[in-house]
Amino acid sequence: MKVASYRVGGRLTWGVVTGDSVSDLGADGPVTLDDALKTGAPVRDREDAPRHALSDIEFAVPVADPEKILCVGRNYKDHVAEGKNKELPGHPGFFARNRLSLTPHDGPILRPGVSDNLDYEGELGIVIGRSARNLTRETALDCVFGYTCFNDGTLRDFQDKYSALVGKNFPSTGGLGPWVVTADEIGDPSGLTLETRLNGEVMQSSSTDRMIFDVQTILCFVSVFTELRPGDIVVTGTPEGVGKARTPPVWMKPGDTVEVEIEKIGTLRNVIRQE
Amino acid sequence: MKVASYRVGGRLTWGVVTGDSVSDLGADGPVTLDDALKTGAPVRDREDAPRHALSDIEFAVPVADPEKILCVGRNYKDHVAEGKNKELPGHPGFFARNRLSLTPHDGPILRPGVSDNLDYEGELGIVIGRSARNLTRETALDCVFGYTCFNDGTLRDFQDKYSALVGKNFPSTGGLGPWVVTADEIGDPSGLTLETRLNGEVMQSSSTDRMIFDVQTILCFVSVFTELRPGDIVVTGTPEGVGKARTPPVWMKPGDTVEVEIEKIGTLRNVIRQE
Repeated sequence: MKVASYRVGGRLTWGVVTGDSVSDLGADGPVTLDDALKTGAPVRDREDAPRHALSDIEFAVPVADPEKILCVGRNYKDHVAEGKNKELPGHPGFFARNRLSLTPHDGPILRPGVSDNLDYEGELGIVIGRSARNLTRETALDCVFGYTCFNDGTLRDFQDKYSALVGKNFPSTGGLGPWVVTADEIGDPSGLTLETRLNGEVMQSSSTDRMIFDVQTILCFVSVFTELRPGDIVVTGTPEGVGKARTPPVWMKPGDTVEVEIEKIGTLRNVIRQE
Repeated sequence: MKVASYRVGGRLTWGVVTGDSVSDLGADGPVTLDDALKTGAPVRDREDAPRHALSDIEFAVPVADPEKILCVGRNYKDHVAEGKNKELPGHPGFFARNRLSLTPHDGPILRPGVSDNLDYEGELGIVIGRSARNLTRETALDCVFGYTCFNDGTLRDFQDKYSALVGKNFPSTGGLGPWVVTADEIGDPSGLTLETRLNGEVMQSSSTDRMIFDVQTILCFVSVFTELRPGDIVVTGTPEGVGKARTPPVWMKPGDTVEVEIEKIGTLRNVIRQE
């Protein structure tokens, strides 16, 4: 299932996307996908639910209020190779985003006034469906509700001068969506092709099997130091081809369109605007 | 005003502490302090509100669901001097905590099964009352609702091997409370004495005027890369005297009592328990 959060007539709701329409499950049941996940309500489509054309809705961030947004840095060998620190990491490295930094499918990615070094990073995102602590590799995927696309929009100069947390928490810089594809439809999350396009030009083209630490390893690691909880988002790092590593560097500018497409999930699209 | 969140008869509520009792403002108005701050409701005591003896309540984390918990590391000169990296930082450095890692006044600090290197860090905590972006030093304190005590409980081996985020996000390791003292009662947040005691013995004794980056500087810096929002918590780093820097190192053990006392605010007390 493709599960989307969206606004229609100003109301926030959610439902299952089929073809070019989406069911409205928020009118009669948990009001948001957050609520459904956090209360453990079954997530399934209802034949009797009202439906809306995708052209009539405004996508929302799939999980509006995640308790945690944990991001892995430097997790593709060829991305590590294009960076300054070329030493392969011995363990997954994390930084946190806050939810203000997220923006939905078709929402704007904002370039702040203080920097024009706005870079893209296409990534596989994991949405947690069940509480989990001290996972083992064999059962690690059991806590996954589904997968989505992420664009880890980064102000590179702020990241380089200060830290990942600073460079990656500017408001409305991280695209998330368009929807969450449930884990049963993805199966093994390795081997999914991932492509990032800027104004239609392919900038990143890789596969999730080139991660240094795969989804299971990342979830096991996180579950040692915190409890994973329904609605949590864990993003898994970006492959090579970022704008900073190009000569000259490529930064996203107001008016640009950036897309992250992941096999079996779909395409997340955002337009850049000046904040 | 001392504004506390607490449970009474299983119900989460909040109120103003006077002497040895607290008013119950949640029964007739915003249900939690979070709600009050996030909806911009006036925070003031009501003479007609029911009251409970402090001995009849169970303290809760003052803000149960902060949108962000941003923590400054290495912010006291003498603490930097006792650490491995002795270079003074040129800017405030941040890591994020998630709310599961917090524990209230009189709540347990949990020592996880995977490590016994559990260290204390007494700190001044700031609770944000109003949205703020791109603050200037002159008006930076206007967004502050109040101040509280924080114990940034840390698994040092995990911090040293992995990162601050990993070592400082174990569940129920960060004490916050006992209450929030409103900004009007504190005035200038520099020059407050801060003391951390372990089983009654003074382990840290300093003053907030020894911060490298003061409260105004920290808030200005944060407001460049994100919007501060009501209920956000920003903690300001710890002075010298942590357990790790002692010979031999001092780790907190199950049964220990740890207290953080800050002038004009009060004393946060937690007991260590095995998770």
